Amino acid sequence: MPRGPDELRALVEDYLDELELTPALGALAEPMRHALGGKRVRPVLCLASGEAVGADVESILPAAAAVELVHSFSLVHDDLPALDDDVERRGRPSVWAAHGEATAILAGDALLAEALRLALSYPGPEVARELVSATLAMIGGQQLDLTEGWKDLETLHGLKTGALFSASVLCGLWAAELPEAQHPPWRAFAAELGLLFQIVDDILDGDGYVREFGPEESRRLADGAGERARRRLAALDADTAALSEIVAGLVARTS
Amino acid sequence: MPRGPDELRALVEDYLDELELTPALGALAEPMRHALGGKRVRPVLCLASGEAVGADVESILPAAAAVELVHSFSLVHDDLPALDDDVERRGRPSVWAAHGEATAILAGDALLAEALRLALSYPGPEVARELVSATLAMIGGQQLDLTEGWKDLETLHGLKTGALFSASVLCGLWAAELPEAQHPPWRAFAAELGLLFQIVDDILDGDGYVREFGPEESRRLADGAGERARRRLAALDADTAALSEIVAGLVARTS
Repeated sequence: MPRGPDELRALVEDYLDELELTPALGALAEPMRHALGGKRVRPVLCLASGEAVGADVESILPAAAAVELVHSFSLVHDDLPALDDDVERRGRPSVWAAHGEATAILAGDALLAEALRLALSYPGPEVARELVSATLAMIGGQQLDLTEGWKDLETLHGLKTGALFSASVLCGLWAAELPEAQHPPWRAFAAELGLLFQIVDDILDGDGYVREFGPEESRRLADGAGERARRRLAALDADTAALSEIVAGLVARTS
Repeated sequence: MPRGPDELRALVEDYLDELELTPALGALAEPMRHALGGKRVRPVLCLASGEAVGADVESILPAAAAVELVHSFSLVHDDLPALDDDVERRGRPSVWAAHGEATAILAGDALLAEALRLALSYPGPEVARELVSATLAMIGGQQLDLTEGWKDLETLHGLKTGALFSASVLCGLWAAELPEAQHPPWRAFAAELGLLFQIVDDILDGDGYVREFGPEESRRLADGAGERARRRLAALDADTAALSEIVAGLVARTS
């Protein structure tokens, strides 16, 4: 019987706790582990996607961890003084505030490289390709945000958040060796999910969509994305119980 | 007839000039191209290695460019105020001095991700694995240097310089699809070459080896590494004319 999101989250936590970082990284291990906090939304989504198409969840764990490391890399660099200048992250000092800027820059670099090492532990290059493509979009989105050169919020969010959300699903499918011809409806599902996640984020933070559309319209947009995600999911020939729970959780989340 | 180093360098320059960066990177393209100056030592070494084992040099260009992008990534981040605080690189403003710190951090990230995209353009994951492994060593070396936690110069240089030098050779071999069983003598050659490069660098800059061993002993160590590299090369069953020229160039270089 497939596992629910909480059980998948526990598996991710254990895997990340026990993950052996590349020995050559030496003293960077501590700031890297410091950076690896969080709700595990993306790796759980990755595991649930792989399991939905019949893979043994253990075989998806490296891909799931790789997605989480890319997410952590982006947060470590975004928090730097030159970017968002955040001294706190998840109620603790951000990596640069705790370990200094130089170490935070290198720890971010190392998280990205280590993510790729995990993605490249599969026989084929597909998981890594998917992850690199999302990483490039995410970095481009960050630069767009920095220069305020963006025209519409959806494009910006598509790059900054949507790309790695989609990659979470797709990396799970590649790791599960689902033939590429069956990917398109999954990509459509993943895109709605990324949108849902970002709008709810903006509702909780009171920025982005809320500033542009107001709180009620933002809620309506979030529910619309959630509804489309559910419909996309129902149309898939897969065991999507855990994924349905994830969608419901993202619609209803309050933190 | 195999090409000499100058011809290979011209091929790399053309390829990098015409390289289409990922469109989503948007305004990062300019600082990334700014970062891509240099002597092309590593990509030329990559091409010469691939050609030495019989590959069509065109097929090695993406791997060669990937190595150069990783090198550029490391320089862009090393130059940042929090690390080496260099305002100049190769007689021009460093990326952060020209484009600001935030953009330099993101441009460095993008160079690393784009390098992996190129390395992943091959059918198998081997080129990318080799490159990621070297990148991790390099980042670890940078942290070791930062904290001055290193015990001997050879270990530090092995991480900071040697790993990517070796990867330049090995990525050329993987891209050329040379069977792995034939790699070990090439790795031994690449290790000597990396050592040679670094000692000569220290002689030209008056630091590192020179500070530890003095100028005469450093020259003797460099010539020893050059001699061992030449002997390693002579023992290889490959057309190593261009590589011999590269070794001679590295022994004799004055800039």
